[in-house]
Amino acid sequence: MVIVLKSNSSESSIKDLIAKVKAKGLDVNVSQGSEHTIIGLIGDTSIILPEDLQSIDIVDSVKRISEPYKKANRKMHPGDSMIDVSDRIVGEGRFHVIAGPCSVETEEQIIEVAEDVKKSGATMLRGGAFKPRTSPYAFQGLHDEGIKLLLEAKKATGLPIVTEIMNLNHIDLFADVDLIQVGARNMQNFDLLKELGHCKKPILLKRGLANTIEEWLMSAEYIMAGGNSNVILCERGIRTFETATRNTLDLGAVPVIKEKTHLPIIIDPSHATGRSSLVAPLAKAAVTVGADGLMVEVHNDPAKALCDGAQSLDPTQFDELMQDIKRRVIFENKVLG
Amino acid sequence: MVIVLKSNSSESSIKDLIAKVKAKGLDVNVSQGSEHTIIGLIGDTSIILPEDLQSIDIVDSVKRISEPYKKANRKMHPGDSMIDVSDRIVGEGRFHVIAGPCSVETEEQIIEVAEDVKKSGATMLRGGAFKPRTSPYAFQGLHDEGIKLLLEAKKATGLPIVTEIMNLNHIDLFADVDLIQVGARNMQNFDLLKELGHCKKPILLKRGLANTIEEWLMSAEYIMAGGNSNVILCERGIRTFETATRNTLDLGAVPVIKEKTHLPIIIDPSHATGRSSLVAPLAKAAVTVGADGLMVEVHNDPAKALCDGAQSLDPTQFDELMQDIKRRVIFENKVLG
Amino acid sequence: MVIVLKSNSSESSIKDLIAKVKAKGLDVNVSQGSEHTIIGLIGDTSIILPEDLQSIDIVDSVKRISEPYKKANRKMHPGDSMIDVSDRIVGEGRFHVIAGPCSVETEEQIIEVAEDVKKSGATMLRGGAFKPRTSPYAFQGLHDEGIKLLLEAKKATGLPIVTEIMNLNHIDLFADVDLIQVGARNMQNFDLLKELGHCKKPILLKRGLANTIEEWLMSAEYIMAGGNSNVILCERGIRTFETATRNTLDLGAVPVIKEKTHLPIIIDPSHATGRSSLVAPLAKAAVTVGADGLMVEVHNDPAKALCDGAQSLDPTQFDELMQDIKRRVIFENKVLG
Amino acid sequence: MVIVLKSNSSESSIKDLIAKVKAKGLDVNVSQGSEHTIIGLIGDTSIILPEDLQSIDIVDSVKRISEPYKKANRKMHPGDSMIDVSDRIVGEGRFHVIAGPCSVETEEQIIEVAEDVKKSGATMLRGGAFKPRTSPYAFQGLHDEGIKLLLEAKKATGLPIVTEIMNLNHIDLFADVDLIQVGARNMQNFDLLKELGHCKKPILLKRGLANTIEEWLMSAEYIMAGGNSNVILCERGIRTFETATRNTLDLGAVPVIKEKTHLPIIIDPSHATGRSSLVAPLAKAAVTVGADGLMVEVHNDPAKALCDGAQSLDPTQFDELMQDIKRRVIFENKVLG
Repeated sequence: MVIVLKSNSSESSIKDLIAKVKAKGLDVNVSQGSEHTIIGLIGDTSIILPEDLQSIDIVDSVKRISEPYKKANRKMHPGDSMIDVSDRIVGEGRFHVIAGPCSVETEEQIIEVAEDVKKSGATMLRGGAFKPRTSPYAFQGLHDEGIKLLLEAKKATGLPIVTEIMNLNHIDLFADVDLIQVGARNMQNFDLLKELGHCKKPILLKRGLANTIEEWLMSAEYIMAGGNSNVILCERGIRTFETATRNTLDLGAVPVIKEKTHLPIIIDPSHATGRSSLVAPLAKAAVTVGADGLMVEVHNDPAKALCDGAQSLDPTQFDELMQDIKRRVIFENKVLG
Repeated sequence: MVIVLKSNSSESSIKDLIAKVKAKGLDVNVSQGSEHTIIGLIGDTSIILPEDLQSIDIVDSVKRISEPYKKANRKMHPGDSMIDVSDRIVGEGRFHVIAGPCSVETEEQIIEVAEDVKKSGATMLRGGAFKPRTSPYAFQGLHDEGIKLLLEAKKATGLPIVTEIMNLNHIDLFADVDLIQVGARNMQNFDLLKELGHCKKPILLKRGLANTIEEWLMSAEYIMAGGNSNVILCERGIRTFETATRNTLDLGAVPVIKEKTHLPIIIDPSHATGRSSLVAPLAKAAVTVGADGLMVEVHNDPAKALCDGAQSLDPTQFDELMQDIKRRVIFENKVLG
Repeated sequence: MVIVLKSNSSESSIKDLIAKVKAKGLDVNVSQGSEHTIIGLIGDTSIILPEDLQSIDIVDSVKRISEPYKKANRKMHPGDSMIDVSDRIVGEGRFHVIAGPCSVETEEQIIEVAEDVKKSGATMLRGGAFKPRTSPYAFQGLHDEGIKLLLEAKKATGLPIVTEIMNLNHIDLFADVDLIQVGARNMQNFDLLKELGHCKKPILLKRGLANTIEEWLMSAEYIMAGGNSNVILCERGIRTFETATRNTLDLGAVPVIKEKTHLPIIIDPSHATGRSSLVAPLAKAAVTVGADGLMVEVHNDPAKALCDGAQSLDPTQFDELMQDIKRRVIFENKVLG
Repeated sequence: MVIVLKSNSSESSIKDLIAKVKAKGLDVNVSQGSEHTIIGLIGDTSIILPEDLQSIDIVDSVKRISEPYKKANRKMHPGDSMIDVSDRIVGEGRFHVIAGPCSVETEEQIIEVAEDVKKSGATMLRGGAFKPRTSPYAFQGLHDEGIKLLLEAKKATGLPIVTEIMNLNHIDLFADVDLIQVGARNMQNFDLLKELGHCKKPILLKRGLANTIEEWLMSAEYIMAGGNSNVILCERGIRTFETATRNTLDLGAVPVIKEKTHLPIIIDPSHATGRSSLVAPLAKAAVTVGADGLMVEVHNDPAKALCDGAQSLDPTQFDELMQDIKRRVIFENKVLG
């Protein structure tokens, strides 16, 4: 961390600052510029937030040099992490496709979709039981009944199931869920993250609507700091000024993530765009750009979907996409599933 | 709600769509344009999310005309709401200043700050006990001990206390807190909002970093739908491309909110800008633009603050600001507190 | 275009509004909802801007249904446009790679880079002669001397040349340039666009930093309305809150553009990310997502580049990328160049 | 400027970098951290863009410490600049209100509006002659005829006139215009800025839709570097994700600008919000926050305005606003005009 001091700082206040920093167990390196004095901090700076140093009145600005995340940092773990989701490995040469409806609706629906997507090559089944909806008056999901139906579909197809948690009191309800999803709106629900850090389940951590890559990795760090290293990241579009798509899919985040962390990353083109016609081209690009998988909404009757239907593929569209994806996974020298 | 159909929609599929809409208890008005058929929905459309209709393949686009919020809507409640915070009224001609440190640190600190800000004219005391920090390694607050210290400061000064809740299991801990704050990162933590809807406490609902005004009002609606109408809104800056300030304070949100809802709104210039030198000019502008109050960070030793010190005023700066604010409140024909 | 009226509009003011609209040669379709009257406009609404109708006091909101662009609209021209750049065809099954340095510096430099990128498979040469720099004190390009050097490099290699225009008085200077680039900062320099509409040269129109896809197509429409249909679009990243990359590359814009317009689109991953390590993964993804080409910065000595070196590939890196791109172009059943 | 080197940089490459920097006439200060070597540049760093240094492969990141603008920098000119607009002084204790229609339409219209706004207290007259419109099919202004009409209105009222330039060839046409406006879309039309740097006219430089405050000041620097120091800044809203207002007015930019530069700044609440009902509250807040003036759209018949009518006040609304503004200007110890 580099601290740039204001040009008129007194010697005694500089000494005070240095003493404070040393009291936190860090060493310093002072260099005198023409206009500004610059103090470099030496040691583990992850315990300090730059905004905390900003408070000191002689400080002009603070620049972090080392990343604030440790367990998620590729420097500490140069090889790719492989996350075990009920014996399916995510990361390192494997490509996963998680498919299924936005919401679990009925036993028939979820089992039919599960069988359809499995036949097409999906490697995991998704389905919402607890749904974060902007309106309190909109359908909120089937809750525990939804999880029960997902487990029926798992029994019928063998596909591991992925579903979203919204409440830290529900962790027991998710005991048989294979991969627990944290949604974009809860990416900085730190109490939920801490709780998930104490379980051993793999976690699918979606990027918040307006969160930077660094904040996202810090949220992963919250889970990992609690002892749970089984984190898979999911980019699902960020909020920008553009209105032609629901959000703007940040595919450039994939190579950035690959540089910064050893954790796997998958792409959700369905929520990112909100339009089914854009799902296939962006799903294909996700394979190319180096993602470790996809999360795609598939509904057996999109026009009847209880939520978010506009972005769902029907099973035929999904099957066509999967035939194409399979060729691309081979092209990238990866293996499906 | 207006549904614009694609230009080549078949008569039978249009009939199907109309039937579905009528099945939800709504009536329709069909008008045939040169290129597009347009269907207007008649009745209570708050149960429908536009994205759900988008799923139907003949639908080109959907435009909401009536607002999706009901209890928060000024149309349903033309007069300004007055929220009772332990016998202090927020709204309608009153102007409140909530002041105090980012974090509660020690009994001496919080009581000293409380006495200082009270002397200067603050009408409520703020202080963080549970702190949402981006890093798991940074100070997270004193937790229940912090609330205990706030209650000591309340006993010493009589000021109602305001502090942030991050966990729905903590509601009992907040039994003696006068105004419960929901932070920006939890604005769409719907399970927390629902839980707060079942208590009677006044809630200070901060706007999310990248949430629209409509989403913010829908989050207020979540609390109100549960039976708790005591919601005060707080604008605290939104995330934009600009880096000269931490966030961009959206003062234009105040007159927009005043048109759309009867709920009071206050401004937090400290978190919005992240720089103490910008707090005073924006605090003054907040009075002028029609806000019902301010939330300002004050620390008795900003340079020693455990978090977010850069944006804190010291008691002298706060006192100067308050002398100015008092004149402005009078100028606006309002009353402090 | 659909006009939603305020709920309390008087019959006479509605009649006035209808009369005004009819005076512009449009017909109307009035439908009476429960709360709102809705007026649909029938005819060519491209002459009306929604914000102009907003002015009328009984108007609640206005929604455009037909796109405001005509010549750029795919509805008017369902097949893909093929743009002829000095006998090289852009669009429809061809994939072009425009490569070269940010700035033209010396004859040796530009000829060496031109020969290098040609050998690797680039189909056009880029190089900046007039450079838009944020600082008046930074290097601004070699100007007409730069164009002369580009023409030398064209003579040496046969590659068509692409370079940016910043001033409508320079069109004559660009007489021998094969493809004239309009930079992001000039995307809404309407006087420049109008002037380019009167020449017959192909134009490479970059998307503005914070412009929507609709605004971008309207800028293409400016050029086309003047009589010049030879427009190629270039996505180069949009400005968002994220700071890990210089801009956020919006690859989802490619399938959106393919739906809305018949014009070709290419991708510039160099300016989008500002970091050379991210160029290759995003260039590959651009092929996959359906772009018609790439624009890539290549410098024979990136560390010595006079501008924007951080994002430049050296000739060896570019050659590696091109070998990979060639395989991908074949995979997509397209032809390079 | 501080250069942070990558952790594994060789001694010889560090020496090379230092030699390059010294060759540009700068001195360096090297400090060795635990992980990173840091090089501080000493001297006038305005000739270097950080992105140029990023190109060097041993460079991890570059941080500017001194601002890149010199003539616009308050450090070089601690007192407020006073800009003379045909004998009206802008800045330092004066508050100006520039009012008038979006577009000049007829002689009757512009003279009537000019007389109205003068009567209410406006100190300058605005009116668009050259209009930047997103659509080539929309009304583009009366051009030189519009300027002629503005000059008629000036003759009738004595009010200095303000109107927008879009084309560097038009400078002669603007010979009698008192204050030349550069619109948001041309803020980085550097050739136009350079040309305006060579005339002596005062320039009203609007902030670009998505430009940072630093970029805005660099555009002012372009004009000033050419020899024209008569620059007035105008904040008119920035583009964000929020859709309730056309743009988000960044009132926090006013105190930031006051810290960084000596140039005056005015606020345009009309374009920022796009809705007339929001103009008054934000205009009042602009006085409070420390702006040096306002630019407000007033039309004698907003419902008939040829452009942008939604945001225009009628003369009665403007008169009410001005009576209020006058009281506020006095409250701030300033003088109108």
